[in-house]
Amino acid sequence: MAEKRPYILVTNDDGITAKGLRILINTAKKFGDVLVVAPDSHQSAKSHSITQAAPIRFDKIFEENGYSEYSVSGTPVDCVKLALHELSDKKPDLILSGINHGANTSVSVLYSGTMAAAIEGGLHNIKSIGFSVDNHSSEADFSPVIPYMEKIIEEVIEKELPNGVSLNVNFPDVTKVEVKGIKTMRGANGVWGENFIPANDPHKRNFVWITGKLTNYDEGKEDTDLFYIENGYATVTPVKVDFNYYSFIDELSTWDFNG
Amino acid sequence: MAEKRPYILVTNDDGITAKGLRILINTAKKFGDVLVVAPDSHQSAKSHSITQAAPIRFDKIFEENGYSEYSVSGTPVDCVKLALHELSDKKPDLILSGINHGANTSVSVLYSGTMAAAIEGGLHNIKSIGFSVDNHSSEADFSPVIPYMEKIIEEVIEKELPNGVSLNVNFPDVTKVEVKGIKTMRGANGVWGENFIPANDPHKRNFVWITGKLTNYDEGKEDTDLFYIENGYATVTPVKVDFNYYSFIDELSTWDFNG
Repeated sequence: MAEKRPYILVTNDDGITAKGLRILINTAKKFGDVLVVAPDSHQSAKSHSITQAAPIRFDKIFEENGYSEYSVSGTPVDCVKLALHELSDKKPDLILSGINHGANTSVSVLYSGTMAAAIEGGLHNIKSIGFSVDNHSSEADFSPVIPYMEKIIEEVIEKELPNGVSLNVNFPDVTKVEVKGIKTMRGANGVWGENFIPANDPHKRNFVWITGKLTNYDEGKEDTDLFYIENGYATVTPVKVDFNYYSFIDELSTWDFNG
Repeated sequence: MAEKRPYILVTNDDGITAKGLRILINTAKKFGDVLVVAPDSHQSAKSHSITQAAPIRFDKIFEENGYSEYSVSGTPVDCVKLALHELSDKKPDLILSGINHGANTSVSVLYSGTMAAAIEGGLHNIKSIGFSVDNHSSEADFSPVIPYMEKIIEEVIEKELPNGVSLNVNFPDVTKVEVKGIKTMRGANGVWGENFIPANDPHKRNFVWITGKLTNYDEGKEDTDLFYIENGYATVTPVKVDFNYYSFIDELSTWDFNG
């Protein structure tokens, strides 16, 4: 651990009442001073969205020596931005997001509010980690992951991440299986296909619930997060934002857009 | 143009009443049959978020031969998913998103609902283009971009995009400058820094508006979208989702996570 007590920002996307957040807060407190800035409501699948169409409300709901906690009427990324630019004079040494109720493997990173918060931290060159468990129940007990999280946090505090890079940590369903170990893997390629279930609207309007199923394009490939999660391991994946598809720029520049 | 009349899905993030959407719809109609599935409200900066915490309402608000229009109580990505999996039996040949009121250059792609819709199309291997103009006013007249959009759409219908790749097209502020031409460029590296402005809440609670300023890490670099937009050109950037930071996986796998 660093000699100076680290200053740690904790957030999530399941909201300030989530059980996973409480476990993460207690783990963070072992390593440093903690600022919690978390959404006041469920913000799953909010991706990198920010609140532009309305003002954002924040309330300090708890404060004691080396610890404070804010509830925010916004998204996980709103929470990180608010923490960095408004609620704290100090830049955090570390951002921890989660523990998400549900895995954020493969292309799920794109939809995940938990990972968006970690990615936003990475964009500001702050060491950031998103933690997720492959169990969606809001009542699931994630305490078996604590020793693994501690080890990961310890390493991240000690070492350096490349500029703009954050970590995506996924655990198998620890309510059912014992973690066999931690593997560093890429995220599998995949796509979410959707199924819309009619909602039971008494007024008979067209309301549907979105549900989805991930197709794993890398089925069986041993260098992917999905492979190891399915086999009972935790995975650590380095993530960075870069939407440019460089290898096609030269060919695209030969297309006749100006003719 | 293809011999069969293309089937084109049109969406946006400024909502179904936006002027930019109407221009895009009229342009799309010149090329094929059109299905419009657009948010019923402003959905700017909603990124890749989907609506999980509530059912989504959709209403068919207009239909005539070869044209139908739906309003959706969700995000741009909800709209694309709903169109692909619920509202249409045919897979679209093309997805057009925009015209966004505001540029989606550099790292803005990460926050943009307009580009998220195009990216979602790319994930389903549908040719998809997001169009944006560097002017945020909802009243701005974007009709000067029409001939350029037509040329780009024509080329995209004729040619092939790589799997998973969509196009990000940005125009300078066409209400003030004439487009000098179209350049194929990468998106500039950058980061949005935020500034929170207190909202004037009569009840004196902590409400703030998010505002931001983009820092361009590639200032002056001539191979970027920002450089050309600033100099009066339109830009076309190929985009693809891949959050893996491959070059750090080997080093990260030597870290002591299991010790």
